[in-house]
Amino acid sequence: MNFDLKQAAKHVVADLRELAKLTSDAKGAQRVAWTPLWQKSRDWFANKAKESGASIEIDSAGNTWATIKGKSSDAVVVGSHIDCVPNGGWLDGCLGVVVTLEILRRYGNGGQKPEKTIHAVNWADEEGARFGRSLMGASAASGTMDVKELINLVDNDGNKIKDVLAKYNVHLDKILNAHREFKKRNAIAALELHIEQGPVLENQNKNVACVYGITGVERHFIKFTGQAAHAGSFPTEIRQDAFLTAAKSALAFREIALKYNGVCTVGKVKVHPDVVTIVPDECVISLDQRSIDKKLLAKMYKDAQTATKKFAEKDKVKVEWSKIWTIEPTIFDKKLVKLCKESVKEETGEDTTMYSGPLHDIAEMAKIIPSVMMFAMSKRGLSHCKEEDTPDSKLETSIRAFLRLVNKVVC
Amino acid sequence: MNFDLKQAAKHVVADLRELAKLTSDAKGAQRVAWTPLWQKSRDWFANKAKESGASIEIDSAGNTWATIKGKSSDAVVVGSHIDCVPNGGWLDGCLGVVVTLEILRRYGNGGQKPEKTIHAVNWADEEGARFGRSLMGASAASGTMDVKELINLVDNDGNKIKDVLAKYNVHLDKILNAHREFKKRNAIAALELHIEQGPVLENQNKNVACVYGITGVERHFIKFTGQAAHAGSFPTEIRQDAFLTAAKSALAFREIALKYNGVCTVGKVKVHPDVVTIVPDECVISLDQRSIDKKLLAKMYKDAQTATKKFAEKDKVKVEWSKIWTIEPTIFDKKLVKLCKESVKEETGEDTTMYSGPLHDIAEMAKIIPSVMMFAMSKRGLSHCKEEDTPDSKLETSIRAFLRLVNKVVC
Repeated sequence: MNFDLKQAAKHVVADLRELAKLTSDAKGAQRVAWTPLWQKSRDWFANKAKESGASIEIDSAGNTWATIKGKSSDAVVVGSHIDCVPNGGWLDGCLGVVVTLEILRRYGNGGQKPEKTIHAVNWADEEGARFGRSLMGASAASGTMDVKELINLVDNDGNKIKDVLAKYNVHLDKILNAHREFKKRNAIAALELHIEQGPVLENQNKNVACVYGITGVERHFIKFTGQAAHAGSFPTEIRQDAFLTAAKSALAFREIALKYNGVCTVGKVKVHPDVVTIVPDECVISLDQRSIDKKLLAKMYKDAQTATKKFAEKDKVKVEWSKIWTIEPTIFDKKLVKLCKESVKEETGEDTTMYSGPLHDIAEMAKIIPSVMMFAMSKRGLSHCKEEDTPDSKLETSIRAFLRLVNKVVC
Repeated sequence: MNFDLKQAAKHVVADLRELAKLTSDAKGAQRVAWTPLWQKSRDWFANKAKESGASIEIDSAGNTWATIKGKSSDAVVVGSHIDCVPNGGWLDGCLGVVVTLEILRRYGNGGQKPEKTIHAVNWADEEGARFGRSLMGASAASGTMDVKELINLVDNDGNKIKDVLAKYNVHLDKILNAHREFKKRNAIAALELHIEQGPVLENQNKNVACVYGITGVERHFIKFTGQAAHAGSFPTEIRQDAFLTAAKSALAFREIALKYNGVCTVGKVKVHPDVVTIVPDECVISLDQRSIDKKLLAKMYKDAQTATKKFAEKDKVKVEWSKIWTIEPTIFDKKLVKLCKESVKEETGEDTTMYSGPLHDIAEMAKIIPSVMMFAMSKRGLSHCKEEDTPDSKLETSIRAFLRLVNKVVC
């Protein structure tokens, strides 16, 4: 390879720091999708990509595509997301977007013309932080999005998804055009580099891993409805306190996660009327359940439903489940996994392999084309918070391994 | 008694319906203090009281006083509040105000001159619905109000309490003059009739009760601080989930309430960052604890603190308590409680006695003069909602019992 991998990796880290400086405050990164700072970071990426000689296009779902034509029209999609959760970290998503700048620079501006066409992509709204719907841009491109499920979503301030997206020139009635646009790209493979966002690699003293699959997700809202009552006068025994039934359920979900070696998270909680002196008549919680095993995921979901029904009946509270979103476990393409393991081994001496708990844009690509991803270790396993970090040397190792993989697939 | 108790009770119910018609809409009663409909209901009361021959005075805190002079200058205060919560019921507060009209009619306009002077009072802003400060008028009259704590209050639209009250001729810098004005009234006893606002009497198949005291309150915010982490990748065993620690605590508070025969209510719940895919790093809940027994209340508070600390330590989560407000239990005057029980027994055949969970204006009177209150049963225990109700026959029984009590104290 006549490309200086070490220099390239250092350059990626420098770009990441530049982006972090532009889009973070004392509480962390603030690139929440469909907000001004997200727009700023999208523009930052598009401008840098343009400088490298790539052509830039925003599709109907708000995904940014930076393309360098190859000798063949067969194309490789490489990318991740630049959006983050509120008070997020500097690497989640950005790593896999910013690394593509170095790929574009390698092949763009009179560099060596690649065998295959390269589509670097910044997927729109991977996190779903504002409207609760993850993988928005990627699922529009893959064509799996059911627009009906999006129409009624609102953010925490009651703004409708339709109105907010329109400000960014994304229109719900046309968002699935992104799939037609994608099909024209003639993509034959997709690659993504991401941080692990968990402590598995650090605990094994590893820096990089080939990721062979992504856990499936069952994500629901659960609404408990009891009876409001005066906090001072209503006897404990006959209360129908919606929050207490939700609290029992949340604790049961933890046991279910442990039983099936998966994870269960209650991330959103809302009580009504939310008044100090009134027993809550309503509590809505979100439940996110994940497993790499389809059958175990189904069991986790069923056990959670059974638990809430049991508690609700005992507490004389009504319980209703409504689906936010589900996805089956993803198992990546065998050939690409082999190339990915080789790349990791060439850089680290070991072909470390694992699965991913978090979802990634590439799960949408894997539904329609061969795909694979690679992880960089995360310090203390922390992510979705300002403490998220990977030491520079380990970050650079992962970037070098990923650039090796891209080279194997593109050339 | 040459006074027709049955007729009087029916008259009170008719007056209550007239007031409800004037000041309710499809969602319930709308007599929120410091609003036009409240003013309308105050005027309605003052005009009716005037017709009965009483002299009318509005004090410096906005309380309406209707006075019939007795043979002695020793005076008995009888009343409650005409203001309500938004979308409130037709009886909460009004019952105890409207019943005084019938007392004034009995002794006014050439009726039998009472032994003691009668001060019928419509206390201003018992609910605190607009500015969050309960017992406003009564605490100004009792002199326990700390005006400093009021100055910065605003309503949900940002209006300052000072500006709003001034429109009703109440000036914060002079509001405590109401205490001086009260002292001149030479009050030696206070009586209040109110609906129960809970299901205790209905469950015991009783219609009226003597209330021997009001529970004390320990009201706190509890903040749990854990560590945010990605919902997909962070292993269950090492999570520091602030919500789960709060959930365990809320369930433990219920057990504490049962153990000490008090009540514990978690009414407000807020998780941070409140995102479906993030393990909450923060959860703030409110805890309202009540007991009629000062020592048990102290134990409930201590046990709740101990429980949260134990859970927090086990879960590696931080816990901090901050006081919202506390008040000691009120135990009413023994002699008045005896007269009250007698009155209930004369009307119902049983000397039913209970304590009150909700606070009432008379708690402020009880700090400075002998006081007692009486409860009418509440259908389904509901209050602070349009469904609030007491069947006419039971309402009339309570009114008759209360008029008996007034007669015993006044004559």
